[in-house]
Parts: sequence; structure tokens; C-alpha cells
Amino acid sequence: MPKKYLIIGAGAIGTFYGSKLSQVGDQIIIWSRNDSEIIAKNGYKIKSYMGDYVFNPYLVIKNLHDLREDIDFIIVSTKVLPDIDIVGLISKVIKKNTAIIIIQNGIHIEKNIADKFSSNQIISALAFIGVSRTNPNEINHQEYGKLIFGNYNNIDSIAINYFANSLEKSGLEILLSSNILSERWKKLIWNGAFNPLSVVLGKKNTQQILENNLAIDLAKNIMQEIVMLAKHDGCKFENDIIDKNILATKKMLPYKTSMLLDFEANRPMEIQAIIGNAVKFAQSKSLSIPYLSTIYAIISNL
Amino acid sequence: MPKKYLIIGAGAIGTFYGSKLSQVGDQIIIWSRNDSEIIAKNGYKIKSYMGDYVFNPYLVIKNLHDLREDIDFIIVSTKVLPDIDIVGLISKVIKKNTAIIIIQNGIHIEKNIADKFSSNQIISALAFIGVSRTNPNEINHQEYGKLIFGNYNNIDSIAINYFANSLEKSGLEILLSSNILSERWKKLIWNGAFNPLSVVLGKKNTQQILENNLAIDLAKNIMQEIVMLAKHDGCKFENDIIDKNILATKKMLPYKTSMLLDFEANRPMEIQAIIGNAVKFAQSKSLSIPYLSTIYAIISNL
Repeated sequence: MPKKYLIIGAGAIGTFYGSKLSQVGDQIIIWSRNDSEIIAKNGYKIKSYMGDYVFNPYLVIKNLHDLREDIDFIIVSTKVLPDIDIVGLISKVIKKNTAIIIIQNGIHIEKNIADKFSSNQIISALAFIGVSRTNPNEINHQEYGKLIFGNYNNIDSIAINYFANSLEKSGLEILLSSNILSERWKKLIWNGAFNPLSVVLGKKNTQQILENNLAIDLAKNIMQEIVMLAKHDGCKFENDIIDKNILATKKMLPYKTSMLLDFEANRPMEIQAIIGNAVKFAQSKSLSIPYLSTIYAIISNL
Repeated sequence: MPKKYLIIGAGAIGTFYGSKLSQVGDQIIIWSRNDSEIIAKNGYKIKSYMGDYVFNPYLVIKNLHDLREDIDFIIVSTKVLPDIDIVGLISKVIKKNTAIIIIQNGIHIEKNIADKFSSNQIISALAFIGVSRTNPNEINHQEYGKLIFGNYNNIDSIAINYFANSLEKSGLEILLSSNILSERWKKLIWNGAFNPLSVVLGKKNTQQILENNLAIDLAKNIMQEIVMLAKHDGCKFENDIIDKNILATKKMLPYKTSMLLDFEANRPMEIQAIIGNAVKFAQSKSLSIPYLSTIYAIISNL
């Protein structure tokens, strides 16, 4: 039997994964305050390197209060920003058996949601994908697509297995992790360094950052602190993970981080999710993180 | 008998101190590549809160090679920038008995000059003054005027005493220090924090910096590292010097640092003098300075 998913945060990422679930028969409900008419009328044009298609949601709603259906899953794929009250939004629509799939960047970002909805299954997910919304109802999927996810609170293993099977059937690469916290710290090693540095070093892409030895040293020092924090959070990595991250970044095409794109477009940046929560964790454990805290102070002031 | 001074770096500060020496009978030679005609013709109009006057230099030269006179003092009052070859400039005009008065910001900025001219008297000076050049031949002296200076290499005590007496006669406040290195570190506690922070925290004046607790903590952490470096350089300060600096800054009118003014005007900043030399000193002693080195990496990339 198909399951019903509600997407809260129908940007490029949430819409794309919804569209793939729709391809294997699931029923996707899109919440869109501004573009519900055009989406309901024409669906989404998905341009994808895996093949183009049209995605017609099961339902498009303008207001969460309009939802009359019982939903099996909520996909949370907003940015993590202080003025987006995710818990409040979920509260309007969640039912006893609804599972929550959080596809967001950052560390410890599940906590608020898991604290409030402690008897609902929480699935924590990281997207490794190049995808952007090019028009209100047009998504461009340029590269990758892997979703790494894991059980956050062990409430309902059937839900997570169902989700995993659907995504796999759709042809996407998935990685079901038994330690999603470790995967988040691992991704943060890169994100916690290159995202803020791309902004504070004068709006530089990854290659421009790596042209300067002082900047490379700074990136490594930040990464070292993140590895140290991860260790205190029970997550250990191989010794050469920092050098590997730098080397892999050198081999990448020049890349503008999401923080830099947000900064240049005058949009709020995901500061708390990507650095603030790590700083908070360090404070709670009385750990010294001079590099991260300096970067945090600077980016919070921009 | 009057003495001859050559000003290398005839901006607001050098010209102002030259004009005061001229008032007590010394002969001031101005080197100006771009404005020598108007200065020779009309002199400088000095608007000063101590009383306005006209300053007619003894001589104005367009090219250092034109100088035929033996000079007693060279006042070096350029900015400290990598592409200003002070040693090369001094070499063109210095004589056996010429004393060099360095009126510049920063730490360890005398070294290059003292190494090269090791048998000339070096006087190291810090200006506490609000003065700006408002036109090619117009200087506006808004506030203060104190010059703190000291013997750098103990070659010629007569020269330094002559200079001190002349300035004192002119009505300026002077402070002849027996430990000018300590005075430089002391000034750097403030400059090394507020100058770069005013730039990297998104172009903020002193009050705007002090509105944010993360920024205050960061300023204090940087100051702590400077105090630590000073200690390793043989200079000790009272325990509450950092709190005093923050408090004094809170009481000041909102103030834009010289680095911020340079940055906003797209002029090169005095990065090496104000931070780079401190970082270099830390490296030479294998001292850890995560806050300063982070700020240094960032400002070097802007």
C-alpha cells in the first residue's frame, strides 16, 4: 500500500526526494505558500542527469491547516534557521504514527524535534546531491543523489525500512547508517570549515581558499577541533581524515558553499546548525575551541 | 643652532610634527612626489585645536636624489606596508650622523631599519593624535598630540634629547620612555584587537563591536594572546589591562580604526605591522596563538 508523505520545506532537496518516492508509487503532499496554484496545475518539471520527468504531487496545499489526510511521513527539508519554527509546523499536522524524516545539514539539529515528538519515529538524513530550484515548479538535478540516513530514536523500524526500500527502488543510492551521529560529525568536518571560511575569507570558492597557505592551515585547525568534539560525542575517525578532506577538496571543481551562496544573496545562513551547535556542545563539555569560536563570532556578526 | 629634518612620509602625522618643530626654529624638509609645487608656493595651512597657523617648510623636494643638504634627522612617518621600501628610501639620503625617528604603528617595525643603519641613532615613536590631511597642503589637527618615544639602539643620546627638547618647547606633550618596546606592546593590545576586528566583523566601529558579546569575548581573547606575547618579549602589564582597555573603549565615542578606514577606501592595510609581526614573533618562540592567527589568516585574505 502506498504511503503518504508531507514535505515541509519544498525547496530543491525536499521536492526532489519527494519526486523520486512518487515515481515508485508513494503519495506526496507538497506544502507551498506561494506557488501552490502553478504546482497543482502543472506539476514540477524535474531536469535530472538520471533522466527528465514530470512530478505531479498527490496534493498541493497552501496552508498546513488545510490538510485533512493522515500522513505516514513528514519530510523536513527546510533550512535550519532560527526564525523557522519547525516544531510548530510539525505540530499542526503530525499524527500518532507519523514518522519524521529530517533531511537537513548540521550537527545536533534533531534534538528540538525529537524532544517534542518523543513517541514518533525520527529518521535523520544527510543528502549528498547537487540540486537547485530553477523556477517555482522546476528542479535541476545536476549530480549525485545519495541519501545517508539512520534511526534517531528507535521507535518504529518498519517506517525506516519502508522509506529505505522506496528510495532504493527509485534508483537512488542510499546508505542506511547505524550511526548517523557519526555521519553528521563526518560531514561537519568539511562543512564546519569550508562553509564559514568561504564567507569570512572574502567570498571565496573552495579553490580560492586552497590557494592560500594561511587559509589551509586555518581550515585544518578548525577541522581538528571538530574531530576533537566528535570524539567527545562518541565518534572517532581515522587519523588522516583531515588530510583526506583537504586533498579531496583540491581535486573538486571550484565550489561555492551553501553559506556563501546564501550570504551573497542576502539570505540568512545556517550558522547555528553548522557552527553554533558545535560551539554550544563544546561549552557544555568545557572544551576549548579557539578557532571555531573565532569563526563563529565573526560570521555571527556579518 | 637649528637642526635639519627630512620627512619621509609627509602625510598628516609627519607633516604635523614637522610643523611643530618648525615653530621652534628647526628646518624642515618635505619630500612630496605629487604636491611639491603647491606646498613650496603656499606652505601648509595647519588647522589645529591649539591654534591655526601656516607652516612654510625650509625646503620642498620632489625627488630624494635632489637633496644636497646634510640632514640631522629623518622622520619616517609612512604607513608600514610591504611595498614601501623604507630602507631603500633612507639609504638615498642618510649621512653618518643622521638620527632616524620612526613614527609608525605596530610592533617590531624598527628591526629592518635598525639592522641596516646600525650605527645611526634610531628613535622609536608612537603618536597619540587625531590628525588628518584634508587637502594636499592642509592639515586638520582635531585632538591630542602626545608623542611617546624612546631610544632604540643607544647610539647618540644628544640627538634624542635635542628632539625631545624641541617638541617640548613647541607645546606638545611628550613622554620619553626608557622602554619603548613595552609602550609598543601596550598600544598593540588595543590595536591588535580592535583594528582587525573592525574589518573582519563586517566593517564595524568600536561601539558596534562592543554591542555583541561574542565580539567582546573575541577581542579579550586576542588581547590575552598579545599580553602573553609581550611577556615573552620581556614586557609585563598590570593584570586588569584588558578589562581597562575594553572599559575605556566603551567610554570612547564610536571610532573607526585606521584599518577600517583603509579597507573601506580600498587602500592597503598595515597588516604586518599590527598583526603579522606578532604572529611571526609567536612562531619564532613556538607560542600558540589561535585567535591572532585566525584573524591574521582572515584579514590577509580580504
